[in-house]
Amino acid sequence: MAAEEKEKKDFVRTVEGRTTFLVPQSSLTERVPPKTPAFFNPAARLNRDLSVLAYRAFAPSLTRKTFADSFTGIGARALRVAVEVPEIEKVYGNDINPVAIEAARKAAKINSVDSKCHFSIDEVCKFLLHGDSEGERFGIVDLDPFGTPAKHIDCVLRAVLDGGLVSITATDTAVLCGVYPEVCLRRYYGRPLNNSYGNETAIRLLLSLIALTASRLELSIRPLFVHAAMHYLRIYASVSVSSSEANDVYASIGYVMHCLQCGHRFKTEEYNNAKKCELCGSVMRTGGQLWTGPFHDREFVKKMMLEQSPDRQSKKVLDAAAEEESGIPYYFRADEISAKLRTNPHSVQNIIERLQSAGFVASKTVLNPSAFKTDARIDQILEALK
Amino acid sequence: MAAEEKEKKDFVRTVEGRTTFLVPQSSLTERVPPKTPAFFNPAARLNRDLSVLAYRAFAPSLTRKTFADSFTGIGARALRVAVEVPEIEKVYGNDINPVAIEAARKAAKINSVDSKCHFSIDEVCKFLLHGDSEGERFGIVDLDPFGTPAKHIDCVLRAVLDGGLVSITATDTAVLCGVYPEVCLRRYYGRPLNNSYGNETAIRLLLSLIALTASRLELSIRPLFVHAAMHYLRIYASVSVSSSEANDVYASIGYVMHCLQCGHRFKTEEYNNAKKCELCGSVMRTGGQLWTGPFHDREFVKKMMLEQSPDRQSKKVLDAAAEEESGIPYYFRADEISAKLRTNPHSVQNIIERLQSAGFVASKTVLNPSAFKTDARIDQILEALK
Repeated sequence: MAAEEKEKKDFVRTVEGRTTFLVPQSSLTERVPPKTPAFFNPAARLNRDLSVLAYRAFAPSLTRKTFADSFTGIGARALRVAVEVPEIEKVYGNDINPVAIEAARKAAKINSVDSKCHFSIDEVCKFLLHGDSEGERFGIVDLDPFGTPAKHIDCVLRAVLDGGLVSITATDTAVLCGVYPEVCLRRYYGRPLNNSYGNETAIRLLLSLIALTASRLELSIRPLFVHAAMHYLRIYASVSVSSSEANDVYASIGYVMHCLQCGHRFKTEEYNNAKKCELCGSVMRTGGQLWTGPFHDREFVKKMMLEQSPDRQSKKVLDAAAEEESGIPYYFRADEISAKLRTNPHSVQNIIERLQSAGFVASKTVLNPSAFKTDARIDQILEALK
Repeated sequence: MAAEEKEKKDFVRTVEGRTTFLVPQSSLTERVPPKTPAFFNPAARLNRDLSVLAYRAFAPSLTRKTFADSFTGIGARALRVAVEVPEIEKVYGNDINPVAIEAARKAAKINSVDSKCHFSIDEVCKFLLHGDSEGERFGIVDLDPFGTPAKHIDCVLRAVLDGGLVSITATDTAVLCGVYPEVCLRRYYGRPLNNSYGNETAIRLLLSLIALTASRLELSIRPLFVHAAMHYLRIYASVSVSSSEANDVYASIGYVMHCLQCGHRFKTEEYNNAKKCELCGSVMRTGGQLWTGPFHDREFVKKMMLEQSPDRQSKKVLDAAAEEESGIPYYFRADEISAKLRTNPHSVQNIIERLQSAGFVASKTVLNPSAFKTDARIDQILEALK
């Protein structure tokens, strides 16, 4: 009991957005936030800030205004939704750690949102399948696990309403970016590319798994917004019940071919592991199967931008998303191009303007502030910047 | 109430194996058994007979001797297990139809197995995740749905013990055998072959989906026995918790290439949709991705044969399984060969003997009594039989 008392004392109040959390002292001081007594990652603030904007933008279209936080920990995301997304009427947070749930319940009282918050201690799929207090599916379902979300994708999709939203984080970025390709293949059913745009391939592998799982359940997904940081990838997608749309899933699934020799890259519908590069003749690498369709919905991103005034970090991400040519499933890094040109680095903005005036499509990307997207081939890019 | 009373009166006793069922009169008289008042298919007797043999063969190795029947209907399979697989200590049967469950409960009393039978009315994934009366996973989990099992594979795998057994039926044979290839691709993540051995490709597509879903959940499967009839395919596989074995899943996943022109077929690890036939130069069809490993475990099949004395139909299936070269992922039909030879039909037994004496591997297959498996190419088969 003495240890438990001590544990309780070790929780401190901290404020994020307009919400107060009760977090373990150690999570604010240690470099890697520990799992005991409860997990809280202060560095995931941008992740939660963007969630609040996304859920505010999405909530008006929901038929049931409920939110489920599958791995809620000390309730950080659930509490922010309860406080900062007023349109959501009921918030359900779940975790296997009772100490974390106790902190979440106390913090709900502190924020005066305890009447709309329901916290539970259960295995995540059981929680998700149980549904809301009427046993119905949830309007919005979030999944933000330690490591891979691959194991729980079907439970998340089973738990969300027709016309609802799922938001899913992956933190197994080493796997998704190509360090353990065989693990990637069995978790995400696609091959990663361990190259200069590995995180874009990664996010598209995650989207592909979600889309293919959905189609097996006679559902279809539509990605609305994605972003990434060093240690995580995150997607937002709406979900509809439609076996005819499910049948079309492969229209958005394909491959990215990449030449490690000359940097040529393109998207293709067909897998071909012996493909030679049309520019330099080297054997190309294959990424995928992966999601090749757009991953931002510009209207949705604009709605997010209108919700509250986003802080500087969120604004930077949303500005890039609003502009991004997200139907191009790869990007080019400015330093990669400069190295090939043997020139001083061009700024991303400068590259984009020069490509556009040469008649190409070009944009920023949320996945890397030092990179750009274009429909120009690498030889055409080098030519335009000479 | 009058209608309900009538419904109850319409249930009649019928005996299968050593077990008495209460079945709707209409299911014994109508050509297609109706879903109301409850579903029961008398024609699935062979399916249930073989289940009893398989569960008796598997039960001794179980650490928890429990059985879950996900779509139990009037309890047919659950009751036969309760009566005829004495090693199983608890039987859990679930259905969404309360009329069916009432018939199952009454029949459990009639068979004096009501103390070991637990019947419930719930959505199938909720039932499966709930576990046994201690909330633990089940030793054996059966899934025998109307139509495709694809939607529920994740739930079945989550519900079974480490070292347990899953048995799964698919009745969407039109999809799996190639009538609706785009539906097959989204349900089973592989392309069907609408040809003379379509049901073998079908069963391997089902096995592949199960294996790939398992590997995502850090599980591995080992097929023990499969069989097929006109309207269904059925597999038995043991399940183990092992992320290292899960990583190896693609060692048993590949493709079958088939030439519609000359009948040449072979298995390959790589997808190649432009492959030309080495015998006649035509473009080949691709089946898969699909399970290319063995699908019978001979030791297990022999154990099944030692359980009770199987009736004639079951014995025929088991004899073929015990002999089958199930690592060859396709078969040849005797009539297909005779047509090419322009001769009177050879018997399967005769073909097998002639191929074996020519030095080839050759066997029967459970998937078609008029067909054989061999490692000989089609030109070598024709040569050997000339």
